[in-house]
Amino acid sequence: MYRLENYNLKKVDTCIQGALDEDIITEDLSTNAIYEEDQEVSVDLLAKEDGILCGQYVFERVFQILDDQVKVKWFLKEGDSFKAGDLLAKIQGDVRPILTGERTALNFLQRMCAVASYTRKIVDQLAGSNIAVLDTRKTTPGLRLLQKYAVRVGGGKNHRTNLSDVIMLKDNHIQAAGGVKEAILKARAYAPYIRTIIVETENLDMVKEAVENKASIIMLDNMDHQTMEKAIEIIDGRSFIEVSGNVTAEKIADLKTLKIDYISSGALTHSSGIIDLSMKNLKEL
Amino acid sequence: MYRLENYNLKKVDTCIQGALDEDIITEDLSTNAIYEEDQEVSVDLLAKEDGILCGQYVFERVFQILDDQVKVKWFLKEGDSFKAGDLLAKIQGDVRPILTGERTALNFLQRMCAVASYTRKIVDQLAGSNIAVLDTRKTTPGLRLLQKYAVRVGGGKNHRTNLSDVIMLKDNHIQAAGGVKEAILKARAYAPYIRTIIVETENLDMVKEAVENKASIIMLDNMDHQTMEKAIEIIDGRSFIEVSGNVTAEKIADLKTLKIDYISSGALTHSSGIIDLSMKNLKEL
Amino acid sequence: MYRLENYNLKKVDTCIQGALDEDIITEDLSTNAIYEEDQEVSVDLLAKEDGILCGQYVFERVFQILDDQVKVKWFLKEGDSFKAGDLLAKIQGDVRPILTGERTALNFLQRMCAVASYTRKIVDQLAGSNIAVLDTRKTTPGLRLLQKYAVRVGGGKNHRTNLSDVIMLKDNHIQAAGGVKEAILKARAYAPYIRTIIVETENLDMVKEAVENKASIIMLDNMDHQTMEKAIEIIDGRSFIEVSGNVTAEKIADLKTLKIDYISSGALTHSSGIIDLSMKNLKEL
Amino acid sequence: MYRLENYNLKKVDTCIQGALDEDIITEDLSTNAIYEEDQEVSVDLLAKEDGILCGQYVFERVFQILDDQVKVKWFLKEGDSFKAGDLLAKIQGDVRPILTGERTALNFLQRMCAVASYTRKIVDQLAGSNIAVLDTRKTTPGLRLLQKYAVRVGGGKNHRTNLSDVIMLKDNHIQAAGGVKEAILKARAYAPYIRTIIVETENLDMVKEAVENKASIIMLDNMDHQTMEKAIEIIDGRSFIEVSGNVTAEKIADLKTLKIDYISSGALTHSSGIIDLSMKNLKEL
Amino acid sequence: MYRLENYNLKKVDTCIQGALDEDIITEDLSTNAIYEEDQEVSVDLLAKEDGILCGQYVFERVFQILDDQVKVKWFLKEGDSFKAGDLLAKIQGDVRPILTGERTALNFLQRMCAVASYTRKIVDQLAGSNIAVLDTRKTTPGLRLLQKYAVRVGGGKNHRTNLSDVIMLKDNHIQAAGGVKEAILKARAYAPYIRTIIVETENLDMVKEAVENKASIIMLDNMDHQTMEKAIEIIDGRSFIEVSGNVTAEKIADLKTLKIDYISSGALTHSSGIIDLSMKNLKEL
Amino acid sequence: MYRLENYNLKKVDTCIQGALDEDIITEDLSTNAIYEEDQEVSVDLLAKEDGILCGQYVFERVFQILDDQVKVKWFLKEGDSFKAGDLLAKIQGDVRPILTGERTALNFLQRMCAVASYTRKIVDQLAGSNIAVLDTRKTTPGLRLLQKYAVRVGGGKNHRTNLSDVIMLKDNHIQAAGGVKEAILKARAYAPYIRTIIVETENLDMVKEAVENKASIIMLDNMDHQTMEKAIEIIDGRSFIEVSGNVTAEKIADLKTLKIDYISSGALTHSSGIIDLSMKNLKEL
Repeated sequence: MYRLENYNLKKVDTCIQGALDEDIITEDLSTNAIYEEDQEVSVDLLAKEDGILCGQYVFERVFQILDDQVKVKWFLKEGDSFKAGDLLAKIQGDVRPILTGERTALNFLQRMCAVASYTRKIVDQLAGSNIAVLDTRKTTPGLRLLQKYAVRVGGGKNHRTNLSDVIMLKDNHIQAAGGVKEAILKARAYAPYIRTIIVETENLDMVKEAVENKASIIMLDNMDHQTMEKAIEIIDGRSFIEVSGNVTAEKIADLKTLKIDYISSGALTHSSGIIDLSMKNLKEL
Repeated sequence: MYRLENYNLKKVDTCIQGALDEDIITEDLSTNAIYEEDQEVSVDLLAKEDGILCGQYVFERVFQILDDQVKVKWFLKEGDSFKAGDLLAKIQGDVRPILTGERTALNFLQRMCAVASYTRKIVDQLAGSNIAVLDTRKTTPGLRLLQKYAVRVGGGKNHRTNLSDVIMLKDNHIQAAGGVKEAILKARAYAPYIRTIIVETENLDMVKEAVENKASIIMLDNMDHQTMEKAIEIIDGRSFIEVSGNVTAEKIADLKTLKIDYISSGALTHSSGIIDLSMKNLKEL
Repeated sequence: MYRLENYNLKKVDTCIQGALDEDIITEDLSTNAIYEEDQEVSVDLLAKEDGILCGQYVFERVFQILDDQVKVKWFLKEGDSFKAGDLLAKIQGDVRPILTGERTALNFLQRMCAVASYTRKIVDQLAGSNIAVLDTRKTTPGLRLLQKYAVRVGGGKNHRTNLSDVIMLKDNHIQAAGGVKEAILKARAYAPYIRTIIVETENLDMVKEAVENKASIIMLDNMDHQTMEKAIEIIDGRSFIEVSGNVTAEKIADLKTLKIDYISSGALTHSSGIIDLSMKNLKEL
Repeated sequence: MYRLENYNLKKVDTCIQGALDEDIITEDLSTNAIYEEDQEVSVDLLAKEDGILCGQYVFERVFQILDDQVKVKWFLKEGDSFKAGDLLAKIQGDVRPILTGERTALNFLQRMCAVASYTRKIVDQLAGSNIAVLDTRKTTPGLRLLQKYAVRVGGGKNHRTNLSDVIMLKDNHIQAAGGVKEAILKARAYAPYIRTIIVETENLDMVKEAVENKASIIMLDNMDHQTMEKAIEIIDGRSFIEVSGNVTAEKIADLKTLKIDYISSGALTHSSGIIDLSMKNLKEL
Repeated sequence: MYRLENYNLKKVDTCIQGALDEDIITEDLSTNAIYEEDQEVSVDLLAKEDGILCGQYVFERVFQILDDQVKVKWFLKEGDSFKAGDLLAKIQGDVRPILTGERTALNFLQRMCAVASYTRKIVDQLAGSNIAVLDTRKTTPGLRLLQKYAVRVGGGKNHRTNLSDVIMLKDNHIQAAGGVKEAILKARAYAPYIRTIIVETENLDMVKEAVENKASIIMLDNMDHQTMEKAIEIIDGRSFIEVSGNVTAEKIADLKTLKIDYISSGALTHSSGIIDLSMKNLKEL
Repeated sequence: MYRLENYNLKKVDTCIQGALDEDIITEDLSTNAIYEEDQEVSVDLLAKEDGILCGQYVFERVFQILDDQVKVKWFLKEGDSFKAGDLLAKIQGDVRPILTGERTALNFLQRMCAVASYTRKIVDQLAGSNIAVLDTRKTTPGLRLLQKYAVRVGGGKNHRTNLSDVIMLKDNHIQAAGGVKEAILKARAYAPYIRTIIVETENLDMVKEAVENKASIIMLDNMDHQTMEKAIEIIDGRSFIEVSGNVTAEKIADLKTLKIDYISSGALTHSSGIIDLSMKNLKEL
């Protein structure tokens, strides 16, 4: 359903090229020293642990930037789950671009699979509820587009992408404006209804003021279960409700019982690590 | 001792600018809506968990790219350890660049501190030995320079930085050349002694051939304790010895007893996550 | 109130640099041929027709990119109106960057003043109503940020900035989805409530379906007065209402009597031409 | 006769890419939400007012940068005139790049057609004379190459392209040099005859001095009819003659009777607005 | 008289930065390993052979891009001649940027001095004549601006800078057009008198046709002395005359006796090599 | 054996594009004025002096960036030697890209052939010895990758490519560290054995200290024959030996008798000039 091919591919290319630039200053000395002639080979992409496949386009593109004759044959679709030991794809082409691009291609794919896999886990824990899992802006510098895409592949939804698309009023904004109402009015005057206005609230008074001033989304920040229940009652369907914070399995079980719309989690993009994958079984053709 | 200021700062700037570009398309709508006038403020940078400080230059530079009047006053030096709750720095300047740059500055600093902290833990476990901890090329795309720097700040050393500076002969290279000896000779013909030649070995025959052909560094790949002991005996100080692989506390305790020179670990840069930090206590001045 | 200084200044600089790159390939031959030595001068910036001042930052920055010693002293504030013949500013500095940058600086300033002036005229015609004037994406390639800023300075508000911040469902989207309702549901599934959903409607059935499915904003496209009145009745305050189309003085007088929220106009940014300004009275100091 | 394909296409691409970058930050949310699968479609490009076709290459290239499978079939040639209602072209390809690129492609094409159309009008008014219509450096920042090309397509000729190709001595240069003669001598010493030297004159004394010192082109600036006649007499075919200034139909009729070589007009590129075009009749294939 | 500071300094910076990028991938390992702390030093810039100083701005700028505190004190002015052994400048600042930038700064300065020195030699041989020495487009890729500037510093003049500023009709153009006259007419139709038209001629018929059709400059290509004398007679002051070709001392002595305007030589920029300079006597302050 | 195709082709493209950018600002005026229609032609690439062919990929790529239909048919292989008068290649395609790219393509090819030819000469003089010829960092700014490649094609080997790949301890480093030993220890602590350590020595004491502290390569700087012989004796095969300096035929004859490993020469890349080549015999097809 989600295809990176529909995104801004120039930004994706810039990102891939940036990674290749880190790794290939002038040439791949080791590979050039050994392989003087063209040599068609095939290599297997194998999973070393379970996960969700995410990043097919990027993986292929790394090789194709080096040599557009390299082909990748996938045995799974983007978003499919795999098990340790599974053969994910076969890469075929000249040995030089394949060896030279291997590390960069894996560095991307392993991280994108990890974000999708981690997201899928949270999404699965919320199964049966109508609560959507949202990412945050706590993304790895330079990889926001790819990580936000991976969240979607994992079944999550995207929160705001940047500081210019949606208004989010946090404690400092509210304090500086002189209150929730004043902040919302200022925001609306600045960007009249074209932009969603999200208000971060810390107590029920703020919730009340936010809903009365028609905040699009009210974020409940670090409230206990009982306070959240009261907040939900006050809001009464007039605004959407987002809960943020350190999402543990336990906390999710608790949140699942509440009539909220979103849970947002920074960990999706800052603590998902990698899914271990490797390229093996090089064969000359 | 290690200062990012001595590195290629243009690359650092490009990296920071890339992250700002992801976050600020046209403007920070929320902040601009609320703050119409200049407002000098100070904000605290606080640790929410223990760690090693790494990334001072990047943290400051994020704000200074937005507004060169923003100042950061640090209470620790690069490489110092801190505890949860510690005040790390005070940021002072106009409220707009501070709020606009906050997330980007933290996204960098939290990840750099994490790499340094993770590295320091491994280095500490090896205390008493002469074994150096090395990073790998399994770095986050776009952040290699910053992550390799963070490894140094954490007390580790840097392995090769890219495919063009050092020769590393892996299984595919060796197989294609027709053996360890042939691979080394080809490498030496291509890049005569200016470049270190590292050979990845899987068994004692390969070790023997590598040392006899004067490999600079011999990497023992996935060998058991006993085999490594024999390899060390064979090498007998004629080449340096690197052990790579999934470095667990247990494994380190085992490796510590061996006369090897390096342990290299990809996890330093792909699985260290973040150290939780936050900017709080905004005060108008 | 609106300051370009709060926007993404790197993009503004890229834009200015792009214009300078078109004009200065290697050097300003004429100026360099004549002025061999430094010569401090002052020049007047004069209005040759009435208008609204917009683009102070860009005007100054053109010169400062060439020579950071050039100073501009303004006699009006951004957004102030001026009359033909008014002295707007005095530019002072070395004669070379001033003559070399003159054309580029005027090319920007004249166009930005024109957008602000044109917008102000429309805004003034709507005085007494609560209708906001919005721009569109019909901006000059490369100048979107500057033109959207100028619309604000002229008293207008900004519609969506790009294809990635807000969802706007047009005829093709609606037809492809199989109806207004289906299109809104698909949009909401793709981007759950974080993004404003705007629906372009052509008849009252579409209006009904849009408001029932909670479109944030309903755009009435090319409807006659009577149909618009019925649409407003149907919507009944449940969604915001935008009217678009070729905005003439006559049409505005008509629209002003309706209870709508926005009028959007492409002409603001594609047909405002220039406000004639010139740099005169060069004096050696 | 004039083909943009013979120009610096890398600059054209940079220009197009810059416009796409303004519009597509991460993705076209609306289109991606609705179209999940590939869908081949055709769309008509229609004229909503009369004009001259200019910008075929740019229009096509916008789509092809997004997806190189999109094809444009033209029913007119570059430079042909069209009437309101005419079908100019059919665009065929996947629906996503077509909808995503529509606005950007039109933003370019409408402006380029407008410059060509405006120029053609002036050129037609001068029919029967040998006077060429020249553009100026009063171009839209970032669009100089495209606008100067459009002037040619409209039948005009190009004045200097930038500050580095031709020498033009204006009032400030002449005053600083100490006179017309001194300015010309300095210019010639700096750039010996390789570069055309144009002198802007305000009175007959300046004209005399310019022609005696072999100015290549003499520009008559804001002179009345009688003075121009005397200037022409003085020059007597020894230099080319350019008249600049606000070119109205009336003024052109007057100038047409004079033996001058060029009329230059900034309005060609700063006040031509747009020719209204639209993409309609999307059909699934 | 000629100052690089009046040129397009952004291009100069891009050029310098490109050279630094080749040399500093991540850091200057050797210098960083040794110098852990700031250390103010001074170093001498010494001439190891005679030459003309050219490139002061570039030399300084290399260091200042690395560290804006580095200062260069010059003992000569741009264009001055020096002798082997002369102290040209003292560089003072932190030791790290000085050692890191040394090679890049010298790589530029040595080449620029060589172009200026070589040009000066040719210019001196023509002393007493009115013949100007011109460069060509046979410049080192990437260094055209700097080399053309160096030619001026050496006393030469610049021929056309690029393919877009002046028209030069060579054998292929003339043959394709169907003759010298046809080529000139086509050129004039394409770019009416704004651009200088230079015609390359191989025999007296072509010379005649060129002068009759008002070529601005006629280039005599590989003609013997006698033919050149006849060509000069035919031209009779109606066009300027350029002689090109391999300029040897002998040939210059011959050309000097002719009434020609320019001699152009590719060797100025493709065979001038370097002037040997070195940075010595590092002293800690 | 050496193929530029295995290098970082993005850098090569950036380099070529940079050169084209210098030459084509908006268009090739002369060619566009004359050739209005497509015209398939062939042109010969001819040698005007003897040399080694180097730069095939770059030569072709210049034309293909302008028009990917241009084809080059080579009659020699990269690295082959040719004689004055030899036909090296035939270029075929549309006349416009061929004439427009001609100068840029030759500017690259002539310089690359010159570096390869010069290197080959030195290599040939060392025939019979085991001494390798090395380049230096004294490369033309912007052309390092291409020049270092040309050295290889000429039969030389590459010294370090940049400041970040190998450690070279020079007089200043050694003096600052407090001696050869201290410098080596510091270098090793900074970059533990992953990087080759080269030590520049000026006398036998330094040689002794360098070899005892296991310098990988010892450079003998400006030593007389006798001192070099003693140095070789001291080193006794424990480190590799490099001799640098102004390499004349005479000096090479002398060095050839010594048991050293490398001779490095800056002249390879700073004083090789050009090999004269030309494109002739344009024929319409």
